[in-house]
Amino acid sequence: MDIPGKWHFELITPDMMIVYRIKDILHTGRTGYQSVDIMDTETFGRCLVLDGKTQSTEADEHIYHDCLVHPAMLFHPAPRSVFIGGGGEGATLREVLRHPEVEKVTMLDLDPEVVQMCGVHLPNHNAGAFTSPKLELRHEDARKFLADCDERFDVIILDLVDPTEGGPAYLLYTEEFYVQAKAKLNPGGVLVTQAGPAGYLNYTECFTVIARTLSGVFPEAHPYCVFIPAFTTLWGFVLALADGTDSALSGPLPEQEPSYIDELVRQRLPQELSYYDGLAHRRMFSLPKYLRQGILAEERIVTDSSPVYMV
Amino acid sequence: MDIPGKWHFELITPDMMIVYRIKDILHTGRTGYQSVDIMDTETFGRCLVLDGKTQSTEADEHIYHDCLVHPAMLFHPAPRSVFIGGGGEGATLREVLRHPEVEKVTMLDLDPEVVQMCGVHLPNHNAGAFTSPKLELRHEDARKFLADCDERFDVIILDLVDPTEGGPAYLLYTEEFYVQAKAKLNPGGVLVTQAGPAGYLNYTECFTVIARTLSGVFPEAHPYCVFIPAFTTLWGFVLALADGTDSALSGPLPEQEPSYIDELVRQRLPQELSYYDGLAHRRMFSLPKYLRQGILAEERIVTDSSPVYMV
Amino acid sequence: MDIPGKWHFELITPDMMIVYRIKDILHTGRTGYQSVDIMDTETFGRCLVLDGKTQSTEADEHIYHDCLVHPAMLFHPAPRSVFIGGGGEGATLREVLRHPEVEKVTMLDLDPEVVQMCGVHLPNHNAGAFTSPKLELRHEDARKFLADCDERFDVIILDLVDPTEGGPAYLLYTEEFYVQAKAKLNPGGVLVTQAGPAGYLNYTECFTVIARTLSGVFPEAHPYCVFIPAFTTLWGFVLALADGTDSALSGPLPEQEPSYIDELVRQRLPQELSYYDGLAHRRMFSLPKYLRQGILAEERIVTDSSPVYMV
Amino acid sequence: MDIPGKWHFELITPDMMIVYRIKDILHTGRTGYQSVDIMDTETFGRCLVLDGKTQSTEADEHIYHDCLVHPAMLFHPAPRSVFIGGGGEGATLREVLRHPEVEKVTMLDLDPEVVQMCGVHLPNHNAGAFTSPKLELRHEDARKFLADCDERFDVIILDLVDPTEGGPAYLLYTEEFYVQAKAKLNPGGVLVTQAGPAGYLNYTECFTVIARTLSGVFPEAHPYCVFIPAFTTLWGFVLALADGTDSALSGPLPEQEPSYIDELVRQRLPQELSYYDGLAHRRMFSLPKYLRQGILAEERIVTDSSPVYMV
Repeated sequence: MDIPGKWHFELITPDMMIVYRIKDILHTGRTGYQSVDIMDTETFGRCLVLDGKTQSTEADEHIYHDCLVHPAMLFHPAPRSVFIGGGGEGATLREVLRHPEVEKVTMLDLDPEVVQMCGVHLPNHNAGAFTSPKLELRHEDARKFLADCDERFDVIILDLVDPTEGGPAYLLYTEEFYVQAKAKLNPGGVLVTQAGPAGYLNYTECFTVIARTLSGVFPEAHPYCVFIPAFTTLWGFVLALADGTDSALSGPLPEQEPSYIDELVRQRLPQELSYYDGLAHRRMFSLPKYLRQGILAEERIVTDSSPVYMV
Repeated sequence: MDIPGKWHFELITPDMMIVYRIKDILHTGRTGYQSVDIMDTETFGRCLVLDGKTQSTEADEHIYHDCLVHPAMLFHPAPRSVFIGGGGEGATLREVLRHPEVEKVTMLDLDPEVVQMCGVHLPNHNAGAFTSPKLELRHEDARKFLADCDERFDVIILDLVDPTEGGPAYLLYTEEFYVQAKAKLNPGGVLVTQAGPAGYLNYTECFTVIARTLSGVFPEAHPYCVFIPAFTTLWGFVLALADGTDSALSGPLPEQEPSYIDELVRQRLPQELSYYDGLAHRRMFSLPKYLRQGILAEERIVTDSSPVYMV
Repeated sequence: MDIPGKWHFELITPDMMIVYRIKDILHTGRTGYQSVDIMDTETFGRCLVLDGKTQSTEADEHIYHDCLVHPAMLFHPAPRSVFIGGGGEGATLREVLRHPEVEKVTMLDLDPEVVQMCGVHLPNHNAGAFTSPKLELRHEDARKFLADCDERFDVIILDLVDPTEGGPAYLLYTEEFYVQAKAKLNPGGVLVTQAGPAGYLNYTECFTVIARTLSGVFPEAHPYCVFIPAFTTLWGFVLALADGTDSALSGPLPEQEPSYIDELVRQRLPQELSYYDGLAHRRMFSLPKYLRQGILAEERIVTDSSPVYMV
Repeated sequence: MDIPGKWHFELITPDMMIVYRIKDILHTGRTGYQSVDIMDTETFGRCLVLDGKTQSTEADEHIYHDCLVHPAMLFHPAPRSVFIGGGGEGATLREVLRHPEVEKVTMLDLDPEVVQMCGVHLPNHNAGAFTSPKLELRHEDARKFLADCDERFDVIILDLVDPTEGGPAYLLYTEEFYVQAKAKLNPGGVLVTQAGPAGYLNYTECFTVIARTLSGVFPEAHPYCVFIPAFTTLWGFVLALADGTDSALSGPLPEQEPSYIDELVRQRLPQELSYYDGLAHRRMFSLPKYLRQGILAEERIVTDSSPVYMV
């Protein structure tokens, strides 16, 4: 319980910080896009920190990546082609590749140095996924690539840094981008995006507005949230269905019976998942009242000309 | 986004801290039992901090107190007599008094100075509850009082500080105490206790073992958890039923339909609650897999001779 | 050695902070000019903090105020009229009043709320000095007052907040102001000003340039420095002589024999001082080489149109 | 002025910390004796931190090492054989080797890993000194070595970690050790030791008692102190003369004329020193009154059976 030592400070709000002890710094530097720290920590194991914000940690990345990837993959009847925007750690890719139906993954992460450093220093995050023959890895802007490409995808997964002013990702959270992305989905396609903090203190910062924006573009958009220890808050996601709920589901997506989800996992995946299952599904899609009301009351839409920024 | 200023540091684990900005200190001191700080903060409004640990804050105490009080009260068919152990802020009392059936509340908080200072400096927490004619407030050890009293209660609510070595509450989390408390419940009685952190990093610290201990004493004990922003983690509770599930419930307690819970609230309470409702119920009783497995795998039982301590 | 608790953070440089434990906050607020905190602390006793910067503390203010006040007062043969700019805590006034020759002190502190709050919460700082019949206390801009007044002074003591952009004092460190102040000194007059940090890390921030500016306005300007614990660095001052060294001194001011200074104190003051004496004089006027060279190499002059700002 | 980032926290007192920003960690680990961090920092360049305490930094180590080494070396008429206890960074050795008379340096640092890591990561500290043919480097306990060796030395320099309970150095600050060390000095020999913090807040922690202990063993022991930025306080040293003041000095050691010291440096060294010169000498040997009185009032003596420990 010593104070002396090396600590990482991170703002959660302008008046609240999360501070964790650093064991070692494996990499620190600045790429053309952002500052990058890969650190080893007592509490979280190895962490990736971009522009001062913790992106994922060995201790709990399975919660984030399970919740980001598997609902979207499972609610598509047979996801053969997957697009990943961001996801430089390789863990989103790792989870996508668990699905045997997947034939091709197109992953775009703007920053090759981040991907390379994660490849070297976060082996548990990628677990060899970068060597998959199914992977096409590109270092280009995801929006431009999607606009120009002829391909269509079954599932689009947006594992992006938070939208910040001047940051590399804020134009990947706008209505214009979502319209474009939807156009690149095959029939029955599913899009999912991380959507920022959903805890009581700052759920209106970007979660409600991203949820609102997606629900204007897609016939169905389902917000959900899960507690991520390293973010010290509930974290939001939005899953959008290009054609509305798949008839294979037993009723409205948020109200699936836990037993149905458990059966789906058993049928579709070679082994059970570390976090996501029937009760996890039920938990994450049962939103607290403040989120339900907050989304209903949200009047903003994110557009290219009025983007949303996190502080 | 200034660094300069006044901050409160609190250990979540030995290697992680939550730090929030202090606006003012309304009271600071040491009672016969513990150190007490009542502070005004930017993020959380007024906070009560005992022995360096944030107990509750104006910004989010409604989440904690809703989840502690209302399931226990609602799952009893007609709670007339209520026992509160701890709860010095007065907010647990305030929530109990929302239930019109309540005729008498016996509240025991060991530390009169804490209760007095909360009365002065946390008016939103107690909202006048301390003046209720239904209240009998005593400053005695809850365990000794329960052992000696002739009364029985419909609902026992344990709103205690965490169990710490040498602290005032660790003997209120043991098998011996739970046996004693059960003996003071009327038929159909319900006991609920706060049960420490339930986030992925430290759910085994005391949550799983308290859950396990209560399930050995009561015919049914239901662990549940909810995200509390000021604790920066999921927080655990355990609700125990003296005679098993009330037949009025629509099946097993954790699996109540949201609509049933919403109807129960409508029938029993004069107005809806700020946090607790049908979906909140579903969310909090749908435990993540690590908690389900952690409770199953838990082999410890808390006893007077082998208590559980938080670090 | 607990981490948990209440701490004050203060930037010394953009990359270094001094952090001390807060016991209580006696006053916090914002006046028309600045933010004000008066805190009780474990290490320093009661502290005055303006705009996030510690101004003085009970534990060590005697070092700062001794070194600011007494050389200037003692090197004037008979200081009857004294002007204090700033000095809201009252401790500079308290030290000035130790000199029996003083007949009148004109003190200008812009911010009446700071003076009032210090009067209430820092009784050891002022030690009753505010009730002296010799005192004329005004809450006006020191520069404007000096420009307009008909009086002249034997000693001018500038106990100001550091010069910061947009702050209340940066125009009280300029050549124009020093010319004006010199014009208000009686023959043989002495001016002294606090002059910012003089430690190896940041002595060029304002110390060298203030020293250089004063030496261009006065025939003699003597920089000196002393270690102030609460500032965690050497602190700079500059003493300027309107007519050059008083013939009463035994040679150049910085090279006075310790025994001569001790004798001067004995003759002029009713009792010895807590910090300042012959060896303290020798220590503080014997500048480290980096300061001597830094002042020589300094090419900037502070003027109204090119002021100096601390970060 | 961002908060987010990596910071090193260090206790100065139990209630005060110095916090500086970390750029990178070059080495971190635990040897058989202590924890070791070599970090690159914004404020101080590369730093060596042992057991959480900053030992020296690129930015200001020249002040510490100048003041530790050169007075002792210069006040010996012709220092041919030098013993260094500790000094793993190599900077004390580097300064000793500036003196052309030196024929042999025997350096004992207990911890070979520290010396090796400093050799790799702190090249500016050692400046190649470890390759000097005059050096005999041993990794043994300095006290045991001195007890057993047949050699005698002209100068003994103790550049040790602070005395801490259970730490590797506390028996190198005791009367018994000083008696032993004195016995290994040649006639005219000089011993100097670092002696802990000498600032107003904590000068009695070990400085006054080390000064007192040495003055009981040697005919003359001269305490002195200098401000070291990375220690954020005045730092104490004690220089002891085996036979009293060298007749070559112009009177009592603390009262040497600056011009005499400057001349001594010119005669004895090939180039001027970065910090130490005549005025630096005057400054560091002119002790503030609280130190003079504190040493006089000190009644403790450090012995093997009642050692002094820093907190």
